[in-house]
Amino acid sequence: MIQRYLGEDSAWRDASSAVAGGIEVEAEAVAREPGVVAGLEEAAVVFDELSPSPEYSAEVGDGDRVSAGDVLFTVEGDGASVLRGERLALNVVGRMSGVATSTREVVDQTDGVTVAATRKTTPGFRYFEKRAVEVGGGDPHRYDLADSVMLKENHIAALGLEAAVTRAREEASFTSKIEVEAEDVDTAVEAADHGVDVVLLDNMSPEELEAAVEALAEYDVLVEASGGISPENVSEYASTGVDVVSMGGLTRSSEWMDVSMTVVEVND
Amino acid sequence: MIQRYLGEDSAWRDASSAVAGGIEVEAEAVAREPGVVAGLEEAAVVFDELSPSPEYSAEVGDGDRVSAGDVLFTVEGDGASVLRGERLALNVVGRMSGVATSTREVVDQTDGVTVAATRKTTPGFRYFEKRAVEVGGGDPHRYDLADSVMLKENHIAALGLEAAVTRAREEASFTSKIEVEAEDVDTAVEAADHGVDVVLLDNMSPEELEAAVEALAEYDVLVEASGGISPENVSEYASTGVDVVSMGGLTRSSEWMDVSMTVVEVND
Amino acid sequence: MIQRYLGEDSAWRDASSAVAGGIEVEAEAVAREPGVVAGLEEAAVVFDELSPSPEYSAEVGDGDRVSAGDVLFTVEGDGASVLRGERLALNVVGRMSGVATSTREVVDQTDGVTVAATRKTTPGFRYFEKRAVEVGGGDPHRYDLADSVMLKENHIAALGLEAAVTRAREEASFTSKIEVEAEDVDTAVEAADHGVDVVLLDNMSPEELEAAVEALAEYDVLVEASGGISPENVSEYASTGVDVVSMGGLTRSSEWMDVSMTVVEVND
Amino acid sequence: MIQRYLGEDSAWRDASSAVAGGIEVEAEAVAREPGVVAGLEEAAVVFDELSPSPEYSAEVGDGDRVSAGDVLFTVEGDGASVLRGERLALNVVGRMSGVATSTREVVDQTDGVTVAATRKTTPGFRYFEKRAVEVGGGDPHRYDLADSVMLKENHIAALGLEAAVTRAREEASFTSKIEVEAEDVDTAVEAADHGVDVVLLDNMSPEELEAAVEALAEYDVLVEASGGISPENVSEYASTGVDVVSMGGLTRSSEWMDVSMTVVEVND
Amino acid sequence: MIQRYLGEDSAWRDASSAVAGGIEVEAEAVAREPGVVAGLEEAAVVFDELSPSPEYSAEVGDGDRVSAGDVLFTVEGDGASVLRGERLALNVVGRMSGVATSTREVVDQTDGVTVAATRKTTPGFRYFEKRAVEVGGGDPHRYDLADSVMLKENHIAALGLEAAVTRAREEASFTSKIEVEAEDVDTAVEAADHGVDVVLLDNMSPEELEAAVEALAEYDVLVEASGGISPENVSEYASTGVDVVSMGGLTRSSEWMDVSMTVVEVND
Amino acid sequence: MIQRYLGEDSAWRDASSAVAGGIEVEAEAVAREPGVVAGLEEAAVVFDELSPSPEYSAEVGDGDRVSAGDVLFTVEGDGASVLRGERLALNVVGRMSGVATSTREVVDQTDGVTVAATRKTTPGFRYFEKRAVEVGGGDPHRYDLADSVMLKENHIAALGLEAAVTRAREEASFTSKIEVEAEDVDTAVEAADHGVDVVLLDNMSPEELEAAVEALAEYDVLVEASGGISPENVSEYASTGVDVVSMGGLTRSSEWMDVSMTVVEVND
Repeated sequence: MIQRYLGEDSAWRDASSAVAGGIEVEAEAVAREPGVVAGLEEAAVVFDELSPSPEYSAEVGDGDRVSAGDVLFTVEGDGASVLRGERLALNVVGRMSGVATSTREVVDQTDGVTVAATRKTTPGFRYFEKRAVEVGGGDPHRYDLADSVMLKENHIAALGLEAAVTRAREEASFTSKIEVEAEDVDTAVEAADHGVDVVLLDNMSPEELEAAVEALAEYDVLVEASGGISPENVSEYASTGVDVVSMGGLTRSSEWMDVSMTVVEVND
Repeated sequence: MIQRYLGEDSAWRDASSAVAGGIEVEAEAVAREPGVVAGLEEAAVVFDELSPSPEYSAEVGDGDRVSAGDVLFTVEGDGASVLRGERLALNVVGRMSGVATSTREVVDQTDGVTVAATRKTTPGFRYFEKRAVEVGGGDPHRYDLADSVMLKENHIAALGLEAAVTRAREEASFTSKIEVEAEDVDTAVEAADHGVDVVLLDNMSPEELEAAVEALAEYDVLVEASGGISPENVSEYASTGVDVVSMGGLTRSSEWMDVSMTVVEVND
Repeated sequence: MIQRYLGEDSAWRDASSAVAGGIEVEAEAVAREPGVVAGLEEAAVVFDELSPSPEYSAEVGDGDRVSAGDVLFTVEGDGASVLRGERLALNVVGRMSGVATSTREVVDQTDGVTVAATRKTTPGFRYFEKRAVEVGGGDPHRYDLADSVMLKENHIAALGLEAAVTRAREEASFTSKIEVEAEDVDTAVEAADHGVDVVLLDNMSPEELEAAVEALAEYDVLVEASGGISPENVSEYASTGVDVVSMGGLTRSSEWMDVSMTVVEVND
Repeated sequence: MIQRYLGEDSAWRDASSAVAGGIEVEAEAVAREPGVVAGLEEAAVVFDELSPSPEYSAEVGDGDRVSAGDVLFTVEGDGASVLRGERLALNVVGRMSGVATSTREVVDQTDGVTVAATRKTTPGFRYFEKRAVEVGGGDPHRYDLADSVMLKENHIAALGLEAAVTRAREEASFTSKIEVEAEDVDTAVEAADHGVDVVLLDNMSPEELEAAVEALAEYDVLVEASGGISPENVSEYASTGVDVVSMGGLTRSSEWMDVSMTVVEVND
Repeated sequence: MIQRYLGEDSAWRDASSAVAGGIEVEAEAVAREPGVVAGLEEAAVVFDELSPSPEYSAEVGDGDRVSAGDVLFTVEGDGASVLRGERLALNVVGRMSGVATSTREVVDQTDGVTVAATRKTTPGFRYFEKRAVEVGGGDPHRYDLADSVMLKENHIAALGLEAAVTRAREEASFTSKIEVEAEDVDTAVEAADHGVDVVLLDNMSPEELEAAVEALAEYDVLVEASGGISPENVSEYASTGVDVVSMGGLTRSSEWMDVSMTVVEVND
Repeated sequence: MIQRYLGEDSAWRDASSAVAGGIEVEAEAVAREPGVVAGLEEAAVVFDELSPSPEYSAEVGDGDRVSAGDVLFTVEGDGASVLRGERLALNVVGRMSGVATSTREVVDQTDGVTVAATRKTTPGFRYFEKRAVEVGGGDPHRYDLADSVMLKENHIAALGLEAAVTRAREEASFTSKIEVEAEDVDTAVEAADHGVDVVLLDNMSPEELEAAVEALAEYDVLVEASGGISPENVSEYASTGVDVVSMGGLTRSSEWMDVSMTVVEVND
């Protein structure tokens, strides 16, 4: 994947960086704001793919909290390679750290409740965004459509709930969980009656969630809440008794962490 | 690229959507907030790649302003394909429309000055983010490292300005422009003296920019400002006399447009 | 995938088939032994990828039982394309039908118990072998390592059962089931105590299985049996009360169905 | 190709194996039945592609005969990588060793006569199956349609024998042999009259083969027999005077060798 | 392959051609010098891969002789697509027609003797160059290293002739011809004694070739001459009695045919 | 790219080279005619991709002038790998050195004027041909359609000059130069009036070029001449005052350098 990203940036045909070819440089990537770092392992691969490959050292670990000014990683080697990898490495670390930071902020407010992402990710970068959620302490939820079964409002609109669950059992292996999205308590209970593994309560208020949790208490089912949950109100949602809160915003709305790279030493 | 994105979502092995196989459905994608739409041509490709391929109609055009509640596109066909393509199509349209909306907002405040993006894009999705900037009325700036020459602070740290420009002329074709990043007026003037095509004034205040523009007035050089520019302050920067303002935030910080898809008709 | 398979057979640079270029032929693929057919949809893709693409009609459906002498599909078109696609189409149908036939034979003896495959598939052809199992009425089980969690003897050897389950909960999303392999009843019960979703009873005799099923009766856990199960003894295993019997032999040991293709009409 | 197979098994996103991350393990792959081993060089590549890459040592050589209980290879390294590569490595070795074992069994009965495979191979795995035939002492025959020219019954049905041979000489380079399939002695002799390099006698009894060999004795042509030949009757076919016996069953019907891998040491 | 070539020319991200988007144009490709045309089928694929795809008509056929001024093909459609495909289509047709023209010129002087190419082709374009040789009436010779066996001077230096032939018989299938390169008559005869299929007489004068042909007359072996043969002297080499003359120059030294494309009609 | 080229030559399945497996050889690549060498860095990659990888040493540098008989590089290692890589390495070096040699010959006659290539390159090998032009002292010009904007005769035919320039400014980023092709002085001046960066004077005689240069003297525009320029007449064109001469012939008509490889030592 990293190779493709380097290709996207045409990093092998690049006159700008070529000007520094043959000059040994050392550069530091520095956080310009506080947060939780992610992507350092992936940044290592960026520089490793370049030739000649500069030496890369992570100065902190994925998942560590850093302050503004902290050095995240250093690279040392041929100037052309260092400059070629700079932007991609910073894009990876900046974007992933932004997601990890938001996730951690939410996790810290939701003691014991699982915080999950969704499939609302940037096309072509999902693996990295899901991984950043994990680094931040969250649950990646389904990586893709082949991961467990999710029957949403549109599936139910097309077939009805009972038929959708029945057909899902035929289509999917017994090794997959089945999750059903419900917009109201009755649907949630009906889904539980059909023996599904997870009920996703969509777009309910904290009060409605509490009622749903109570109604589902007797079932052996995981309860997930989604829709309208933000870092600002997540603690209220998390205290309704649900097992999981999932938030598209973890991957959609997280700000990047501001990270920059500076050459700190030059040896001709 | 769209094929890869479908692969990322494992859209060919997906028991959830399979439950709606053999059922004809019609679905509408609706904007849930106002903005400038982008990605409708790309969403067409998503459904076109699926088999059996549902019929797709864009209801508005890329670049159109829409209100909350407006239908963006409809798809009609086999339920399995419609549901398989849903999330990716919405991710493409939601992300691209968010970028186009922010760009338009900025363009509307910067009468006559070019508004440009940067290479701070999500890895694997750059083409779409740059394209969304264009749809919003902005300039994509360099697509990649092979697009014209840019000598930044780190290049100059490694070689000095004069040597960097000289070597860039050797490394790059005469068909490429050469741009130099300057942190202060003196460097900017020195770059112009070396005959570069564009000077990028980085992290200067509007006052400093005015001074730099004046100092560069006698040169045949384009002047670009970057660093610290946001939708809130861009009009101030744009009125300093620079030719271009570039903002990483167009692709880094834009909120997604909220778009959802609903099945509106079912025919067994 | 079919494109890769055609590439593997160098089907675009092939002097043998070229001799029939420009001659319209019609050919029939015929089963030379009875069985359950699979792969007809996939064979359609083979001919569709060739140029000029011959017309393909399936004469029976995937999952149908056929007798020796039944026509499975016909192709009509340029002789070069028909001959180019022949071997690959027959390999796909022959191999998949063999797997579907064996699976059906087992399914017919295991009334109500799920018959599942394993990951013991031919590298590069897994999707098709798993699909053939489904066509034959079986359950594909995990398509790959990312599909639910399976903790086998080696995992437990490395960490101990409790630690393995705990770490699996951290590593995997809550959307994944967790399955544990047990060689004896005690381990099975211990796994159930840890709340896993599926227990795989490995290499037990039917008597041991019955004992294990009884011991697990009070837990909300699926019980799967594996190891030493063949078409000859499967009904005995299936009547022990387990929910699932899984057999590597479905994909490892199934004989191909003998299928051949004959040109039945020629028009110069 | 091995990379693709690892991708097929999603070996880079795998929570099950991840549980053993950070634990050093040593594991042994053991033959559970006697046979001829193949695939050990390929298994080395499997582990080599994983990261961190465990140390792999083959304990016997490709082509060696082993007994039940013999250790085939050992791997030592991070538990996650060892477990990730386990199934693919065993699938490669198990399948290839099965083919090599059957081939050797046949070769041992056909003193001096070449034993050849066909293009009846599992799509996506041909290279490995052909290679296993070679390890077992057999001849791979044509790897693909671009390897020499083969005119079969369907070619002759489409054009007639003479026209087919003439056109084949136009289409193919002089560097390619031309082989013609014949269902009876007259066709075989006619083919030899046209100067082809190999005659394939299809579906003839040993007696018919003897007659054909005699009729072809005066021609400078290789004689290959195919159709209905099994390990049980191959010695009879091989003693008819033909140069080559080819058997689809080498790759179609060979049982896998049963091979399993066990963790034998753990170091936290 | 054509897709890769369009990718090499970045034909999907191209502001120059975009200026003609939305304007219908018709353009003609015209030969500016006489010759034998090749590549018209391949040029069709170039335009077919573009979107929106212009209508393409070949006005002459591959293998036809044309005069300066003859129209080779026309395209009609959206101006952006026509201009995007122009250079690649012309490069394909220009290069392939150059090779076909040279080949025909040689073939016309070598009545009955096969004129063959070599593997001295431009990397990444071999298929097209070999195909152009065929269009010009030549023989492509080996497409690649897997096509028959060729033992050259370096192989013989490494093992000696006899060992090389013996090992080649072990390594290659009986379906492959074996060819041996000989620098002198004795080696040629020794190779024929070992029963090889083709002897390549390298760098011999016409007189030496005649002697070698005589010495090889009693063997059932094809005789190929190579080295130092040019369009100027080929008739002399061809009349020495050899079966084949092969010339690296067909693909190495052929001049491109000069072909240009002109817009002949515009409809806004 | 080198991997693809090895794939094109099927270098991984090759019985010919396999005969030298297990024999250590040392081989030298020798120039058989004088010239400027290019491709030695690329040849290193060829051998590096093979397994086991032979040791490669360049004996001269890319860009060096060599005489007939000079050793260009040596390789030492397993005979199979050395022979497998031989042809591709020689094709790369022979073709690239041919281009570099022609380029240098032209550059030496055009003191101070830039000598540029065009997009008339062999499909699939452009990067290497452009690179060879650079090694020879030339300018690669646009690598592809995404590199700066070029408006040629056909663009102007479709839209008119003014509209084409205006639209190009909309379609392209401000970071791209705009170049316009002109067939006469008036068009050239009109283009300069529109503020384009480069004017390409196409198919003009040296006298016309001088007139055009004079007419353009007052504009800040680069002047490039193209069409009808050959190594024989380039000095005349170069002395007309233009900044750049571009020649399709550098990549279209350059003869390959004759380079061969010989095994010089063998150790069983």
